[in-house]
Amino acid sequence: MLIGSIEAGGTKFVCAVGNENYQVQDQVSIPTTTPNETIKAVIAYFKQFELDAMGIASFGPIEIRKNNPLYGYITTTPKPNWHNTDLLGQIKAAFDVPTTWTTDVNGSAYGEYVMSTLSNEKIQSLVYYTVGTGVGAGAVMDDHFLGGIGHPEMGHTFVKRHPSDLDFKGICPYHADCLEGLVAGPTFEARLGQKGETVPLTDPVWDILAYYLAQAVIQATLIVRPAKIVFGGSVINNMLLDKVRQSVTEQLNGYVELPPLDQYITRPAIANNGSATLGNFALGLKELQS
Amino acid sequence: MLIGSIEAGGTKFVCAVGNENYQVQDQVSIPTTTPNETIKAVIAYFKQFELDAMGIASFGPIEIRKNNPLYGYITTTPKPNWHNTDLLGQIKAAFDVPTTWTTDVNGSAYGEYVMSTLSNEKIQSLVYYTVGTGVGAGAVMDDHFLGGIGHPEMGHTFVKRHPSDLDFKGICPYHADCLEGLVAGPTFEARLGQKGETVPLTDPVWDILAYYLAQAVIQATLIVRPAKIVFGGSVINNMLLDKVRQSVTEQLNGYVELPPLDQYITRPAIANNGSATLGNFALGLKELQS
Repeated sequence: MLIGSIEAGGTKFVCAVGNENYQVQDQVSIPTTTPNETIKAVIAYFKQFELDAMGIASFGPIEIRKNNPLYGYITTTPKPNWHNTDLLGQIKAAFDVPTTWTTDVNGSAYGEYVMSTLSNEKIQSLVYYTVGTGVGAGAVMDDHFLGGIGHPEMGHTFVKRHPSDLDFKGICPYHADCLEGLVAGPTFEARLGQKGETVPLTDPVWDILAYYLAQAVIQATLIVRPAKIVFGGSVINNMLLDKVRQSVTEQLNGYVELPPLDQYITRPAIANNGSATLGNFALGLKELQS
Repeated sequence: MLIGSIEAGGTKFVCAVGNENYQVQDQVSIPTTTPNETIKAVIAYFKQFELDAMGIASFGPIEIRKNNPLYGYITTTPKPNWHNTDLLGQIKAAFDVPTTWTTDVNGSAYGEYVMSTLSNEKIQSLVYYTVGTGVGAGAVMDDHFLGGIGHPEMGHTFVKRHPSDLDFKGICPYHADCLEGLVAGPTFEARLGQKGETVPLTDPVWDILAYYLAQAVIQATLIVRPAKIVFGGSVINNMLLDKVRQSVTEQLNGYVELPPLDQYITRPAIANNGSATLGNFALGLKELQS
């Protein structure tokens, strides 16, 4: 069995081919330039294989309502050239196999969810946050994605401001100081005038980020009640997650019973940013078998 | 067909009997005193009828995981005498009929969800907030309740503080200025020294409440993406909901496409606080038919 995976990102499309055990057989990274150029290269890559199914996890916003004429499109993205791109339609036109369509963060959430089953942890629900250039999240509940009239956009909720951070205006073009506007990667430059990679782990800014990310954990916890919350993305490191756990303990103040926080709030179990690829394999396989 | 409904609240148990068309045939209100006394009266009431099924929607926190030894219990409530009360078990011991068990706000959410189908609105997802002595919420997604390792506790997330309200400490005993600590009924006394019912609609406090409730709407919107958000509870009035809609428009700033806000953010469609009763009828009937 061969399943194709497309993790469509703003800078690159990670394309992979895997088997029914979710093992990567081949993988390539294609730069995100124009839809024509990138999608053509993606199709050419997969034409080398006899695929049985495909899974696509895309940057967004995307249309996920099957009864909508724009189902399968990347819709209102600010990314130049990619506004209203029928990504799913072009892939399906090239490959006559069962193909799934969800957000990049849902793909990662599903990969981590499946991994919990493979590793005998067997949780029933999981939220996956990515904290990088932007902030997004996906969620799996009992093998289904959370979402009603659209997919979650958890990065843009508001949070209580940290007392040492009241003068920072935030960088979200829509909301200024929503979660993304306060913790996304570019906030390092905005607050400190330096790239995040160069900020020492002793800088107090990490406490501020942890305070806000802890509130994201509390929102997801009290609204969704997942069994686990996973954090991926370039801003995340072990020290930061330790601070997040400590801040959750302080701010939530024992209000609901949670698993031990080192198991509840974690980095991805799947190495090398492979969560969405594994998720796509599993979703494609599930689609094929249904 | 006769279905029993118990809406177990902190001050009263509303017990009703309805038919397969969700019409109330009989209803009584029993004061919440001690578990022994109240549950005995509830059982005596329902013994008058030949019930086919029952639905219970209870104040919480409650245990909803069927594989947990405390399933069916009201667990860590601060309400005197009611800590660790096996409400479902006592009802099931008295009535050998299919019986459902969920939170009061989930019961209300389900009632409003079913009503949308009866009224031809036919939404697939709905969040129901109650704003009264406390703040709580329940959610239905594709005929299932939202929740993983427990039921939602959406009233205790944090929000960005209103610039004119920075000196108010909040009244939540766990979190001080979480949503409940900033908007629940008793905040009127804490801020103004008067009961909510006596606060004129021209008081600026309503703008403050609307600002926070709009952030609750934004959290539920961006995390769950429901088709509708319904507000019940003694604090809610039409003018407040108008202010909430306006504040959502300003704070969310067009980030995601929503239904017209007068349809998206509403008061209950079911009159006379009957949402949970109708929800229980529908849940009991569904359990019977499954």
